[in-house]
Amino acid sequence: MPEIKSIKKTAEDFAKEQKEISISEFFEKNKHLLGFDNPTKALLMTVKEACDNSLDACEEAGILPDITVKLKQTGEDKFRVTVQDNGPGIVKEQIPKIFGKLLYGSKFHRLRQSRGQQGIGISAVVLYSQLTTGSPTKVWSRTDEKKKVQYYELFIDTAKNEPEIVKEQTLEDGLERGVKIEIDVVGRYRKTQSVDDYLKQTSIANPFAKIVYQSPEGNKTTFPRSFDHLPKPPREMKMHPYGMEFGVLQRFLSKTNSKTLQSFLVNEFSSVGAQTSKEICKTAKLDADAKPPSLDRASIEKLLGAMQKVKIQRPPLDCLSPIGNGELEKSLKKEYPQAEFVAVIGREPEVYRGMPFQIEVGILYGNLGNIDDQIEIIRIANRVPLLYQAGACATIEAVKETDWKRYNLQQPKNSLPTGPMILVIHMSSVWVPFVSESKEAIAPYVEIVKEIQLALQEAGRKLSSFLSGKRRAGEAQRRIQIFERYAGEVANALHILTGKEPKEIEKKIVGMVKNRDKMKELEIQEQKTIEKEPETEEVKSKAAGKAGKKEIEEE
Amino acid sequence: MPEIKSIKKTAEDFAKEQKEISISEFFEKNKHLLGFDNPTKALLMTVKEACDNSLDACEEAGILPDITVKLKQTGEDKFRVTVQDNGPGIVKEQIPKIFGKLLYGSKFHRLRQSRGQQGIGISAVVLYSQLTTGSPTKVWSRTDEKKKVQYYELFIDTAKNEPEIVKEQTLEDGLERGVKIEIDVVGRYRKTQSVDDYLKQTSIANPFAKIVYQSPEGNKTTFPRSFDHLPKPPREMKMHPYGMEFGVLQRFLSKTNSKTLQSFLVNEFSSVGAQTSKEICKTAKLDADAKPPSLDRASIEKLLGAMQKVKIQRPPLDCLSPIGNGELEKSLKKEYPQAEFVAVIGREPEVYRGMPFQIEVGILYGNLGNIDDQIEIIRIANRVPLLYQAGACATIEAVKETDWKRYNLQQPKNSLPTGPMILVIHMSSVWVPFVSESKEAIAPYVEIVKEIQLALQEAGRKLSSFLSGKRRAGEAQRRIQIFERYAGEVANALHILTGKEPKEIEKKIVGMVKNRDKMKELEIQEQKTIEKEPETEEVKSKAAGKAGKKEIEEE
Repeated sequence: MPEIKSIKKTAEDFAKEQKEISISEFFEKNKHLLGFDNPTKALLMTVKEACDNSLDACEEAGILPDITVKLKQTGEDKFRVTVQDNGPGIVKEQIPKIFGKLLYGSKFHRLRQSRGQQGIGISAVVLYSQLTTGSPTKVWSRTDEKKKVQYYELFIDTAKNEPEIVKEQTLEDGLERGVKIEIDVVGRYRKTQSVDDYLKQTSIANPFAKIVYQSPEGNKTTFPRSFDHLPKPPREMKMHPYGMEFGVLQRFLSKTNSKTLQSFLVNEFSSVGAQTSKEICKTAKLDADAKPPSLDRASIEKLLGAMQKVKIQRPPLDCLSPIGNGELEKSLKKEYPQAEFVAVIGREPEVYRGMPFQIEVGILYGNLGNIDDQIEIIRIANRVPLLYQAGACATIEAVKETDWKRYNLQQPKNSLPTGPMILVIHMSSVWVPFVSESKEAIAPYVEIVKEIQLALQEAGRKLSSFLSGKRRAGEAQRRIQIFERYAGEVANALHILTGKEPKEIEKKIVGMVKNRDKMKELEIQEQKTIEKEPETEEVKSKAAGKAGKKEIEEE
Repeated sequence: MPEIKSIKKTAEDFAKEQKEISISEFFEKNKHLLGFDNPTKALLMTVKEACDNSLDACEEAGILPDITVKLKQTGEDKFRVTVQDNGPGIVKEQIPKIFGKLLYGSKFHRLRQSRGQQGIGISAVVLYSQLTTGSPTKVWSRTDEKKKVQYYELFIDTAKNEPEIVKEQTLEDGLERGVKIEIDVVGRYRKTQSVDDYLKQTSIANPFAKIVYQSPEGNKTTFPRSFDHLPKPPREMKMHPYGMEFGVLQRFLSKTNSKTLQSFLVNEFSSVGAQTSKEICKTAKLDADAKPPSLDRASIEKLLGAMQKVKIQRPPLDCLSPIGNGELEKSLKKEYPQAEFVAVIGREPEVYRGMPFQIEVGILYGNLGNIDDQIEIIRIANRVPLLYQAGACATIEAVKETDWKRYNLQQPKNSLPTGPMILVIHMSSVWVPFVSESKEAIAPYVEIVKEIQLALQEAGRKLSSFLSGKRRAGEAQRRIQIFERYAGEVANALHILTGKEPKEIEKKIVGMVKNRDKMKELEIQEQKTIEKEPETEEVKSKAAGKAGKKEIEEE
């Protein structure tokens, strides 16, 4: 080892340079990881994080949300964003931490559907705001009409990841109840794929919320509530055995209060009763009375194996809060009154890696753009619209993988179908597997893509019937027009033959034709339920032969 | 506000649930963000993070790296990964933190090219290991032959993000000098897009390193050094004014030791001399003698504006460590001896957002697969191969955007070209803008994509000349063959006419033809430099007309 003398930098030199990096410093330098890649996206993220928090808080507190969003341009590339809600407010002591500390919140350590999940969102906005404008974030909070308004101006001390309070006041007025924030950011405003779209889609996914929006041009838009009740609140669930990992199980075992392995399994996991618990112990060849912390690594491995092997009921599904078929349909009809066809598919909940999730699909057709344009896809996860990274998203993969030719749409190879159509795809889950921390796309896990595809196929079949009906109605209409064109001549000829009034004859002929067609239409309607299956089958094999895609089937 | 009575959960209830989330808990739950999405990728990440650290440490210490990587399958989906280097080692006190704490390291707070940049990599591997196998990570370190070996077995306490030491020993033996780690992970081994590719490409990008690799099947591969000297060590640089942001500037101003604004600019930034500093102050209409911490927000804004407006020299470029033309070419010839054509393009350093970066491209052609297959692209950032997320990478975008038909390759619309070709694209920078924390793709910033395209065009032109030469040589060969075919007959006819020996006549004819062709070839060679430009132009306009792509030009 001759180079030993020539070491230019020793381990001791290195040691002097090693130091801790605060999470705030990390995200300040890597703000693109949180979605703050460019000014347009940053403005959207600012509104989004504030609104998501407001909606979560209102829903959890059982309050019908009233949210006001105001954008004001304050410089060439500067905006003041104001978001106000009527939620439960935040107690004084928590305000600085919630806004001035990354990785702080109430949603990370529980399994329950909510919009936020990490405790990063709003503090990331504060971080971005101070980085780009140097302005403190202003927060007003009032928890009760009888209490006063708490007012803060604050920064994040990035080196410590702790709030740095600039101003702290108690005010008599300015807010009835809830939270109001005012944040200055460097941003860019545009109409599409930004705040306007986000709020419209948020209104679709949260039909119980009222949102009032003032754009930078001063235009005021109100998205009214289409329902006056909140969705059933989702319940918190425990981990399901199928979603367990070694390290987590090990930690659970060492920290449990349960005295025996059998009770540990019942107490700490969802869907495990006494019987299942016994079976797991038996399969793992472990003593059901063993003390949980006493298990060594080999035993934990056996236990984990058994937890995956034994048939266990699926997790409880009341931790989910889907939009609801009726709600989504009403929402869509309200936002797209021009659509000729609207249908909604709500699938039953499914499970991926021990996590329950549920897919809902809305399909709209007609008067929604050109026949040659790609269809529009609205992607929503836990009631939050996703506007970026579509290419990486499970939803888009599922749409591309579906054979739309089967349902009478055009679809270029490896592409989205074309047509005057909008698809709304909503995934609700206790844990949405986003591909990045900016939460823009759902990871295309097999189980998730499959469920979306099944929903899309159902939607496709409905659309296909509608389009067939429309085609038949068009043909009938054309038949009637042809008869009407010649009815006059026929009537004249019959008038000569019979001597009856031509006008009366014509009226009768036209009436006959129309009736006959109506009858035929009725016959078709009745036959449809019977015909449907084989007809679909035929279309299926034809289209599959061409495109090489098969309709996937439920297990 | 009638609902006030019906609040189901008050601000006080919420407050009880709010708590801090440790960065380890965060990444344990979000391990896909760090690249641990699936077992195949996880195994690669484990090797990659360990090797990158070893290479960084050796290079910085001035030691020619000798690295040994060993994979051993220990269960159906379990692997023991051992990586050993001959680097400077780690001092005892630092070992637990470097391996047992996320966001800890020496590279985050400086601007200098290195493989690691965040202080997350190796501790993320430890986190993944304990999560999936429950095993502690084993670390041996020796900083000097005269000192003893420090041995640790450790976990990360995820709730605290602090190391949890299981075993701590001083050993007499087991390691000459450097670091050795042994990590158990749940993983899957495959040949392509994994450890084998990573090590081969690492050897290409680090021709001064010797890597010995033992695969799970027990096959031993040695990637020898092709150079016996280390690259010139990159220097640390200060921030360049063009890369400044409000919040960072504000912090700099408040913490500086400089007494005046003018000296602040000179001391804290790169490329700013007394003259430039004065000009910045003048443009900002600020007093050059002002005390830095005294600047209010309006003044900082003016200062920031002026820093962007005033013409400032580009940052120093000795903070970069490109592979080098000669080094890369030798490396490529060593790994792909079968290639018919190898060329290397090294661009001059450029700057994006105040950060220097440099692009190098290697191009290999012939005997490298089928003419109809997509070309292979090896992507490297700061000497580290990138194996995933190609679709999101600036390199791939640049290759697609380049019009390869111009250079005589086939290229389907919006796709990579096809042919028996490999492109190696290397970006060196003090800060590579990765699209995700798993560092798999380079963000497609305009400045970066453009530089890569310019390098690719240069490479394309070289390839095009080679292919033309090859085509001409082929044509000449065919001409000779035709003459040879008829030479016998012609010789016979001449023999009858002249009475000379047919064999001799034939030999002369063949000799003549060959000579004539050689002459022609020489003429062409000489003309090429003159012809080249208009020829390229012609191809340019033709191809551009077809594909709608223009060759971009340097400013």
